[in-house]
Order: sequence, then C-alpha cells, then structure tokens
Amino acid sequence: MTRSHGTLAHRLIADHLVDGRMEPGREIALRIDQTLTQDATGTLVMQELEALGLDRVRTEVSVQYVDHNLLQADERNAEDHAFLRSACRRFGLWYSKPGNGVSHPTHMQRFGVPGKTLAGSDSHTCAAGSLGMLAMGTGGLEVALAMAGRPLRVTMPEIWGIRLTGHLPEWVSAKDVVLELLRRHGVKGAVNRILEYHGPGLAALTAMDRHVIANMGAELGATASVFPSDAAVRTFLCAEDREADFRELAAEPDAVYDLTDKIDLASLEPLIARPTSPGNVVPVREVAGEPIGQAVIGSSANPGLRDFAVAAAIVAGHQTHPAVSFDVNPTSREILADLTKMGSTFDLIAAGARIHQAGCLGCIGMGQAPAPGRNSLRTFPRNFPGRSGTEQDAVWLCSPETAAVSALTGEITDPRAWAAKEGVPYPRLRLPEHASVNRAMLEPPLPPEEAARITLERGPNISGLPDFDPLSDVLEGPVLLKCGDNVSTDEISPAGAKALPYRSNIPKLAEFTFTRIDPDYPRHAAALATDGRSGAHFVIGGENYGQGSSREHAAITPRHLGLRAVVAKSYARIHWQNLTNFGILPLEFDDPGDYDRIDPGDQLRLENLHSALAADAEPHLRLHNTTKDETYQVGHHLSEGRRRTVLAGGTIVALAREEHPYSGAPSTR
Amino acid sequence: MTRSHGTLAHRLIADHLVDGRMEPGREIALRIDQTLTQDATGTLVMQELEALGLDRVRTEVSVQYVDHNLLQADERNAEDHAFLRSACRRFGLWYSKPGNGVSHPTHMQRFGVPGKTLAGSDSHTCAAGSLGMLAMGTGGLEVALAMAGRPLRVTMPEIWGIRLTGHLPEWVSAKDVVLELLRRHGVKGAVNRILEYHGPGLAALTAMDRHVIANMGAELGATASVFPSDAAVRTFLCAEDREADFRELAAEPDAVYDLTDKIDLASLEPLIARPTSPGNVVPVREVAGEPIGQAVIGSSANPGLRDFAVAAAIVAGHQTHPAVSFDVNPTSREILADLTKMGSTFDLIAAGARIHQAGCLGCIGMGQAPAPGRNSLRTFPRNFPGRSGTEQDAVWLCSPETAAVSALTGEITDPRAWAAKEGVPYPRLRLPEHASVNRAMLEPPLPPEEAARITLERGPNISGLPDFDPLSDVLEGPVLLKCGDNVSTDEISPAGAKALPYRSNIPKLAEFTFTRIDPDYPRHAAALATDGRSGAHFVIGGENYGQGSSREHAAITPRHLGLRAVVAKSYARIHWQNLTNFGILPLEFDDPGDYDRIDPGDQLRLENLHSALAADAEPHLRLHNTTKDETYQVGHHLSEGRRRTVLAGGTIVALAREEHPYSGAPSTR
Repeated sequence: MTRSHGTLAHRLIADHLVDGRMEPGREIALRIDQTLTQDATGTLVMQELEALGLDRVRTEVSVQYVDHNLLQADERNAEDHAFLRSACRRFGLWYSKPGNGVSHPTHMQRFGVPGKTLAGSDSHTCAAGSLGMLAMGTGGLEVALAMAGRPLRVTMPEIWGIRLTGHLPEWVSAKDVVLELLRRHGVKGAVNRILEYHGPGLAALTAMDRHVIANMGAELGATASVFPSDAAVRTFLCAEDREADFRELAAEPDAVYDLTDKIDLASLEPLIARPTSPGNVVPVREVAGEPIGQAVIGSSANPGLRDFAVAAAIVAGHQTHPAVSFDVNPTSREILADLTKMGSTFDLIAAGARIHQAGCLGCIGMGQAPAPGRNSLRTFPRNFPGRSGTEQDAVWLCSPETAAVSALTGEITDPRAWAAKEGVPYPRLRLPEHASVNRAMLEPPLPPEEAARITLERGPNISGLPDFDPLSDVLEGPVLLKCGDNVSTDEISPAGAKALPYRSNIPKLAEFTFTRIDPDYPRHAAALATDGRSGAHFVIGGENYGQGSSREHAAITPRHLGLRAVVAKSYARIHWQNLTNFGILPLEFDDPGDYDRIDPGDQLRLENLHSALAADAEPHLRLHNTTKDETYQVGHHLSEGRRRTVLAGGTIVALAREEHPYSGAPSTR
Repeated sequence: MTRSHGTLAHRLIADHLVDGRMEPGREIALRIDQTLTQDATGTLVMQELEALGLDRVRTEVSVQYVDHNLLQADERNAEDHAFLRSACRRFGLWYSKPGNGVSHPTHMQRFGVPGKTLAGSDSHTCAAGSLGMLAMGTGGLEVALAMAGRPLRVTMPEIWGIRLTGHLPEWVSAKDVVLELLRRHGVKGAVNRILEYHGPGLAALTAMDRHVIANMGAELGATASVFPSDAAVRTFLCAEDREADFRELAAEPDAVYDLTDKIDLASLEPLIARPTSPGNVVPVREVAGEPIGQAVIGSSANPGLRDFAVAAAIVAGHQTHPAVSFDVNPTSREILADLTKMGSTFDLIAAGARIHQAGCLGCIGMGQAPAPGRNSLRTFPRNFPGRSGTEQDAVWLCSPETAAVSALTGEITDPRAWAAKEGVPYPRLRLPEHASVNRAMLEPPLPPEEAARITLERGPNISGLPDFDPLSDVLEGPVLLKCGDNVSTDEISPAGAKALPYRSNIPKLAEFTFTRIDPDYPRHAAALATDGRSGAHFVIGGENYGQGSSREHAAITPRHLGLRAVVAKSYARIHWQNLTNFGILPLEFDDPGDYDRIDPGDQLRLENLHSALAADAEPHLRLHNTTKDETYQVGHHLSEGRRRTVLAGGTIVALAREEHPYSGAPSTR
C-alpha cells in the first residue's frame, strides 16, 4: 500500500504542523490562524477566555457571530448578544451582530483566506474548505485555547480524494453532489478522514457551490473538507473586494490519496434525504407526490446567492401552494442585499414566501417548526428526529430547485418532471459580478489599550463558569445513571428552543442534563449535594458513549451536578476529550462483561487516585462496588498531560495554575 | 346641552341599526358587514362556529389572518395554521396565510370598504376607521355570532369630534398626532366614545397616516375611530385597484358632537411614550440622550409603506449603532413588495437592519424581547410592562423618524436636532402611485357544495371547546381566590410566548389561569374536581374586575376549571359580557363593605337560582357564607336574554338549543 502524499490537505497540515507526525491515527498539533465562534457556543468560550486569564486573542483573526439564538422569546438572547459584544471588545475579536448572517458564509465572504487554518465552535466550520482552507469544527474550549495561541490537537486523518468529472445537468445542483456522497457512504463514511475534491468537474463549480459540498462533510463525519484554491476562488474573492487574499493552491500533480472515489457530475439527478437522517438519500422521483406543508430555502448548507436566486426564478410569477409555508432564510446580510438588488427578493415575496431575518433559524430548531406529521422540505444539512422543534416531524433535505418547485405544487416534485410538464426552461441566472460588500457591518477589535478598559456586560442570566475543584484521592459515590450504547451528547445536554437560551447559564442548563434518558437525574444529583458542594457520583455507559455533536455543555453540566467519573465500554472521540477538559475521569471496562454486574444505585469507590494517575503509573485502576462487595479492573487512555489535567480539575484550572500565562501584552503581529 | 347629530359616526350607526336607540349609554344592535379574526383568537372562534352548528358565514366578507403566532418554536403554531385554513374552507371565510401580514393593514388594502361595519377579534380593529368604516374590536364569540348573522350589541358611545388644522412640520408624522391625544387625555380618555376626525388638517394625511391615528384609538379606550371617506381614501383605493369600492362619506356640515377637541398639526413636535404606558407621553427632546439597545419599525400602529420608507431614507448610507438591534417588521406582503421595489429594503439591509417576516412579532411579545434594563424604541401601540417578553423591560413608543434616527446615534434623539446637526434634509419620499397588488396571496372561500365536504384538520394540540353544563339550582363551593381592584384579563389569562401557543388548547391554557396572582389556583381548582367533573367555586373581585384586553380566554379557562360565579364590587364592560357568554354568574355586592367579610377558603352557597334568575325576578340574591354563618345581599345587571344564557350554561349552549339555527343553506347574497 502506497503512503498518501502530495495532497493539498498534506500541504495545509504541513504548513501548520507544530507537533506530531502526519500518519493517520497519530495525534498532530496544528497552529490555528483564524477562529470562528457562534452565539450558542460562544458565550461559554468567552467565559473560558476570562477563566484562562487571557488578555487578548493571539490568532490572526477571531470572529464572534450571532446567528443561532435570534428569536428572543424572552430577555436571555438579547442579554447574550450584549455580553458577546462586550467580550469581543475586551478580548480583541471581531463582532458580527445579529442580522449579519450565518457564521459560515459570512466568514467566507469577509475573512476566509486560502491556505489558512480555521478552528470553529460549530460543526459546519468545515465549509470554509471551499476556499482552500483547513477548517475544523471542535469543542469551545479547544477554540478558546486556539485563541490563546495554543495549537489544536487532532488525530491525523486519512485523505480521501474525490475526483469530479463532467458538468451538472439542468435542475441538478451542488446539494445533489454531497447528497450523492451521503447516498454512497452514509453518515459515518468520512469519520477520521479529510474529503479532498479535485478533477476537471471542479471548473464549473463556483466557490459558493463548493461551500455547499464542503459544509455537509460534517454529515459524512469528516474531519475537514478541502477544495483547491483556483480560478473560482479568485473570482469569488474579487467579487468580495479581496483579491489580495487570493493564493493559488492545489494538490501536487502526482498526489496519492489514502482512499479514492469519483463522481461523474453529468450522471447525477435530483436527490433527497428522507426523514430522519441525512444518509437516507433517494432520487426525488422515487418519492414524488408526497404532500408537503413547508419548504425552506437557506442555512449554511445552501447559503449562496445562487441558491436563493434560482428558487426566486422558479417561483417568479406563480403563487406557492396555499397549504405550503414557503420560508426563505437569507444566510447573510450581503446575500440578502444582492438578492434584493437583482429583484429576486421581490419575486419571492410576490410568490408567497415568508422572508425571515438572516440566520440559522429552523436549521437549529429556532422556530419554523412544522405541524406534526406534515412533510417539510428543507435545503438544510440535518434532519435528525425532533431537531425541527416538532416531536413527530418529517423533514426532508434537498436542493433549492426541488424545494422551490415542490412549494408550488404542494407535493414532493422532481423539478425536471415539473419543468417538462410546464414547459419551463432551467433558469439562466445573471448574478452580479461584484457583491454588495459591506465592511461597516462588522465591528473590528478595539486597540489593546482601549480593550483593557472594557468590562464584560454580564446580565442576570449569564452565570460564569462553575468552580472546578481538583480530583480527590478517593472518589466514592452512587451510580446515578446506567446508559445503553450510542448515547449522544444531545441526550446528555439537549439543544432546541427550550434549552438553547440557557447556553450561558450552566446551573439552569444543568437542569436539562440527561433528562431525555432519566427526567430525575438532575434532582437525584442535587439530593447528593451537601454544604453547597455537589455530590460526587458515577455514570455507567455502553459503547460509543457521547457520540454526535461536539457541545462541551455535555461535559460541563453533568460535572456541575457532581459527575466525576464515567465508566463505559467505549467513547466517542470529541466527548472523551471534553470529559477530560472538564475534569471528569473517563474509564473503560477491561472486561465489558462487568458492565452487566453494576446496577443503578450501587455505591462505587476508587482509591489512591493521585498515585494511580501519576505520570509513570500503569493505566489501570481497581473499581470497588461496595454495595455488591465486588471489584472490577478498569483502564484509561490518558496521556501524561491529560492525567495532570484531570487531577487538577480540568483544563482551565490546569492552565490557570501556570500563573495566568495569557495575560500581559499580546504578541505583535 | 345640544344633543349630538349629523356626525359621520351617527350615519354609520344609523345605516346599520337593527335595534336600540342612538342615545349614549343605551344598548344598540348593529348589523355587521365584515369580520376579521387573527390566529391567536381565531382558533377559538372557529371552534365556536363549529359549536354553534354554523354551516357558512353570513357576512359579506369574513377573513381569517395569521399574524400573531409566527415563531413556531414547536409544532403548535403550524398546527393552528393548518386548522385555521381548514376552518376557512369549511365555513366560507377568506384565508390569509402566514406571511401575508398583519390583519389591519392587509384588511385595509384588500377588503376595507367605506361605510361598512367591521367586527374583529382584535382590539386594534378600530384602525379600519381610516377608510370611513365603523370598525370595532370585540370578544371572539361576539365575532362568531356576527359571522352567524347576528347583530353586534354595544353601548351607544358619545361622539367626540377632533378637529385637525394646519400641516405637520418636517420630522413630525401621524404617530405624533395620536401621541398628542394620549398626552392630553390619557389611556382612558375615550372610553365609551367614538373619536371622529374632521377639519382641513385631514387633507394632508393619507389613508395610511389615518390608519396610524385610528389604530391607537384602542390605547385611548375608544369604541371606534372614524375618518371621513374623501379624496385621500379614493387615492388609496385607486392605488389598490379598488376604486369601485370608493364612496364619499363625511359628517353633515352642521354636525354637532358630544365633545370636541382640536389639534393644530403645525404646532406638534416629535413625541414619545415613556415606559410603561402609552399614556406617558413627553416631547422627545426632554428624554434625548438616553442610550438604547433596540429600535423597531413596524406593527399595525405604523404599518404604512411611508413609515418604512422614511426610516430607510434616514438610515440609507449610514450604519446603525453597533450596540443597537435595528429590527424591521414589515406589516404586509404588499408593503414589503413595494418597499423592495423602490429600493428601501436594500437601504435598510445595508444599514444594518434585521428584516423580519411580515407580522405582529414583538408587538405581542412574539420574539424580539430586549435585554433587561436596556431601552427599546418601538413604533408599536403598547408598552405595558413585560409585554415585550422581558420582565424588566423599558419600551418606548415613538414615530419611525425618531426610532430610525435613534438607531443611528445609539441614544434617544429628537430627529430635528439630528437633522440640524448633520445638515440632513427631511426625506422627500417618492412612493409608487400604484401598489404591488397581489390578489393571489389570499385564498377565497370555497363554493358551498365543496365547503360542506371539508373536515376540520384538528391536530393533537387543538382541544375543542369544553362542555358547558347548565347552572344548577344550588351553587355551593369555596372561595378559591380573592382579588384586589383593577385585576386585568392579562392577570386572569396571560398572553406572551409561553401561553399564546396554547390559545387553541383550553385544558393546557387553563394551567396558566390566575397564576400571576396565585400560582396554585389551577391546582386548587383541580383538587375540587370529582368524577372527572370540575368542582364549582367562587372568585371574589374588587372594583373594575376584568379590565384590559377583550380576550374571552379569561372567561373560558376559569370556567373550565369550575368557576361558576364571581362576586365583585364592579366589572369592566367586555369581561362582564364574556363571563355571561360562558355561563359564569357575575354578581355585585349591594354593600361593598361585605367584600371585607369574605376570606379565601370560605364556603359560599346560592340557593333557588333558577327562580332567582327567572325573567320577572328581582335582580337580587342572598349569598350565604356557610363558613362564617353570614348572609350578604348581592345583585346583577343581567337582561332577560342574559339570564337565560347564564342559566343554560353560556351563549353557545343557549344558541345550540335553538335546533342548530345556523345549519342548512346559507342566505344568498
């Protein structure tokens, strides 16, 4: 087997490699040039910067977006926005206020630079690969550390070359390309892999088309998506008044990939993901005729001016079906401005669209919930059950073409069939060569002297991080919960319109912890507390504990309630990392059969932890079940550094001990 | 004292008078030509039509709008929308789907006709007075009865002539006119009065300007606002392609009013209502310099194209202050279309506005809640405390000019002072002569044969009306609540983002009943229930019991929980009516001092109710307090008809007994 080499991903990694070797499966450390945070994760990141004692961010560019919590059903969202702005002013970040749009397309328009690394506390950060960046979504604390100048540690992925040939047929667009990959490989197809696109088919895909494909790398489980920086990227940057940021980047001609696949674009047809997984992809024609109640255009998965303009061209002069809510979520202020200038906004309004503010909205369950049992067609990246805000939802993922045509007919419709029947030609869009560039909408970082005088505007619902006490030498407590396999972070700390507004209030958010599995968990944990201190307890997990979203709230909120050790059969990678970051000991059964011997309520005990987690100690411990008078052998995979972290109580405590390493004058740049 | 006569209000009333004499204070019955319902009240109205056994509406025009519950944080809103559409198809109403806009301006654009009567289940229905209509907000059941062809019974109001002279100065607009009336007369200044505008100052006010003034008649407590139908109305109807609906209407030259006032428009200056009442009006210059966090343009109180266009012209080429969320809520699809066509939407976007979907939104606490303690400037009609969704809110009411200029400066700013300082001329707007008329957006009533086959689409959250059993001869139960004076319907059945989604689910909504006064009321009421039947109980009220909004939920939900009689010192008019409509006996202390003798928990008993409420019985009853072994004399003001209604268990039961009088073929028209 030939070792992969010469890919663009290799070059981007090599250019930023601080530590480690580029062998798949080994840990590497990467210098991070840019960071991106959004409001649902950002309020915590800002509190982490504060806890780290950081004076000013050390990246080239760090931007805080406000795109998730925009409904403002009560005061908490607006309070978060004010807090985030004050934190940007304090720590030297750019602030993108509510209404500027979704982080990913906005970042691409105003900040993305070919060849740079980007770490973002949002799983779709990989979208920036459309510009030839190495862009990765990760936990908030990892992004905070990147802002503090620390490298990002990731597992070196395999590089998967996807060769594109041919031209997309009419009524087929970029969304169908990534849906085809999901159809072939499913939602775990690219785990621990970078998807690198190359080949002659790229020539006809604009940078924004590539964003569509790069974005949903997250749905394939990819570490990142990478496109070359070529003429299409130059055209994009010129349109954005940023030609100076252009730099040509491509794989070596003799590049060798770890895996390969190819797509003949000309062979594609309109595709759609059925409820309730992005991997349930079928041709639209196979499900045509299903009645629908909603169609939504927008999200970071179809963010481009083209995506809205093609929908507008399709519905222009018609009226959407009376039973269909046709929702249009512009993805950025700039795109809405251009859409309006070219007349498409008018066409959408006249055809019956509801034009919403620019932002994520329904894509993260912030409004737009459909009626139970009624099909909703969305150009979004995800359709997990209940994510729309409706328990019995039926969300389908498709292209803007399919969504717009179906909004007219009131049923799922293959746009080619509709066009043939109605005699409608595929819209020839005339997009502006120059975008409605608006630099004034972004608030730049304050000069350091001025920033140092800013106080964080912490409203009554912004809690501050909880205290993280060090791990005691003896850990004893009951098993409060025993879970099955594949428990997701959504089950540990749910999102949605009810919980999301508390993302900056750990004690309140903690009241939702594990409630999808056991509604009484928070109450039982609270009952263990004495003298105002949370009572230590254990959770028992099965295989793949903590899969899904990277949210670190799934570690912080149980920790706040007293969780100090999880014993599981195995862990999902990011959650394992988050557990150690927040001082929770992640242990694994040496004999998975011991899982069956422990019952909820059993009293467990670990002794001599300080010596057991010493640098040179064997990675095995003895776990006593004092209720049953049994002992089990358990192990861990903690590196020396991570042992210190867990003993200290978590990363923030460990770093703060280094005498506030991040205060003082920032490095010049 | 000369009896008033010859006013336009008199003519409109006389043209529709079915019963009663036009003497202030006497009950009159009016034929209703048009009705308007919105979604927050409409779901119940449709269930009432169903309970009444109505086959098809008998009005000239009845329209159901969807403008309140648009956030869709879960499935309930969308479910309501589907239910409302099916009810429109079943009963012969027009359906205006979500996104078409706020009922009042949309109705004015597409349906309003000079000289007609309009009853609406929304307090701002009075806005249609701008077209020379007699338009009144009222409880939902009254609107349902109007749809069924029954006359609307109201108290004949006094007619208050407001003479307008002169021209508005630059930077002063229609909102300042009605704020001036509120400054002079306060929020109860027009109770039981019709505000009739006349005089040469009208010539320079467009029909939409008049809408602004007519709308906030509700804030003065007026029964209706009336403007003549003149050249301005003709211009408006021509622009809407409806010149055929025009009809000239004005007061007689020798008209005499019950009361008079006059405003010299030239003398006005920018005004603003401070938190937390529309009556707290002061000149903007007196509060200039207060920092703000939000400015919002929109709502039925400033719905016109002009209102948005002037804001756009002011912010064009500038950027709104970074600490300010500048929210734009288009009021109708048509207005947003025109605004977009003329370039103003682009200017707003570029300046930093968040463009929201067309609808009520923040005006009824559906999103847009400001951060606690931060000033929010809104062009809305109301700023009652907490109505924004934020407990500690600070909402100010002003014109679009004041709001837009303040959004730029970040503080409350007199637009004249800003213009002088910046050398900015007052915008000369070039509004289109012809509106972007869109008839296709409204779904017309189905033909009767087709309508008869429609089934109501009742989702799992739409409860149906509770059963209303007749009043028993002996009523005995405890006092579950004793209130003070001026308890509002907001305290009896709250609105807001938490409760509003349950407006079509009486058992769920009932869980909010009285909770602002006593969080345990619903639980205590439930504890009284036996064998699945709610337990009868009493509420003791002070003066002006049930003031504020007309919502009938404030009668239905306590009735659902078992409330069968209220004993109070006095009642607000509409709530008293709603109580009788839903079979709750409204009694008054003959000796107000007896109020102090009753304590919560006391057991009360009324005997021989059937004979005591007979047609010829004296309007007095004996109320026994069996706990204290005392007896009090109480009275009522029930007419013969209302006695029958209460005995039957409420209006719906009483009418349904008339062998479903509303089924069968509709009258031709």
